[in-house]
Amino acid sequence: MSGANDGDGVDTFDGNAAWPVTLEGVTETVVTTLGPNGRWNAAALGLFAEPAEQGQGTTKTNDAETRTSARTWGNTRTRRNFHRRGSGYVQFTRNPVDFVDAALSIYELEEPVLESADAWVRVSVERIDSGSENGTRWEDWQLRPLESAVETETVPTINRGFGAIVEATVAASRLEVDGYDEPVLRDRLEYYASVVDRAGSDREQEALSRVREHSEW
Amino acid sequence: MSGANDGDGVDTFDGNAAWPVTLEGVTETVVTTLGPNGRWNAAALGLFAEPAEQGQGTTKTNDAETRTSARTWGNTRTRRNFHRRGSGYVQFTRNPVDFVDAALSIYELEEPVLESADAWVRVSVERIDSGSENGTRWEDWQLRPLESAVETETVPTINRGFGAIVEATVAASRLEVDGYDEPVLRDRLEYYASVVDRAGSDREQEALSRVREHSEW
Repeated sequence: MSGANDGDGVDTFDGNAAWPVTLEGVTETVVTTLGPNGRWNAAALGLFAEPAEQGQGTTKTNDAETRTSARTWGNTRTRRNFHRRGSGYVQFTRNPVDFVDAALSIYELEEPVLESADAWVRVSVERIDSGSENGTRWEDWQLRPLESAVETETVPTINRGFGAIVEATVAASRLEVDGYDEPVLRDRLEYYASVVDRAGSDREQEALSRVREHSEW
Repeated sequence: MSGANDGDGVDTFDGNAAWPVTLEGVTETVVTTLGPNGRWNAAALGLFAEPAEQGQGTTKTNDAETRTSARTWGNTRTRRNFHRRGSGYVQFTRNPVDFVDAALSIYELEEPVLESADAWVRVSVERIDSGSENGTRWEDWQLRPLESAVETETVPTINRGFGAIVEATVAASRLEVDGYDEPVLRDRLEYYASVVDRAGSDREQEALSRVREHSEW
């Protein structure tokens, strides 16, 4: 990882790197941010591809007309590290265990990039908006790529078990949040577990165990 | 597509091609089969990676120890064309509109390979089992790769809207099948539609319209 910032300073927009993937709609990623303990905190982050200027079109892709943003909810490590450092590493992984650990637990690393990352992007982040919903403060951040690398390219495949892990992670993270109907969430979790049983591989089974371990499910 | 069978004969196992992807658990694909009208019928097909010999291990991947099978439900075009031709083209696509059209409608092509296929595999198929469930006859087929090609490799990304399209397709296909609880299916469909609205791109929005168009939803 030559050229990666080792965390001694606040990153500024010093490059003009490109996103290594096409971003459309909301893309679920893992972001690592450097904490005050010198370790990299991994968390889930949804990237929004939006038209940069209102009225410039409706196609939500990361071309020149779009900007990429993400929302942090509450006073998370990601939010605090974004404020402190102004940067992070966005990563694209298809490893369901890493995804669940990042989304639902305190998951810290010595290095900023996950072993399982197919690609990563060092980004600068700038807060562009904030507000609150159902008593939770949120902040919106614009992300600009500073440096990126593709580690592995593959033929993407569809596994319903993998999708069920992503959905189970979302549902489990809402179990303790006001404003969601808990019995509905639990029904969904049972259904996702049945999909993992039928269609998942050993990796998805392991990820499902982690969802149960890390949540009130 | 040099070397592809043009459909004048029944395919036999004449090669020793490899699967161009790692198959684990159940992988959702589109299969095209040559019909008596000379056109290629596209349909959804789930590939099961199973240990070839019972007790040889629990890891479900397509290494030497595994076999790949798929189940057809009812008297579909795919089932009939499998019997007639003994072959088909398995395709890996991430285009949600193609996936929905193949799964829920009569979708016929002049050529066997979809424009959107990231990879394809010509397979021979052999019936290995049959039975019935809730009054529907099923047949299990073993698939062996004869020839394959990778068209595009990318960094896979996670979009919940895409996953919701796959799940909506499954739910919509069950609306008219005995043994499923229709109100439960309709609740799921409404939820998947909300996920597509929030996280999908224009392609997923189009695919959602197709689900509504092709089903009793």
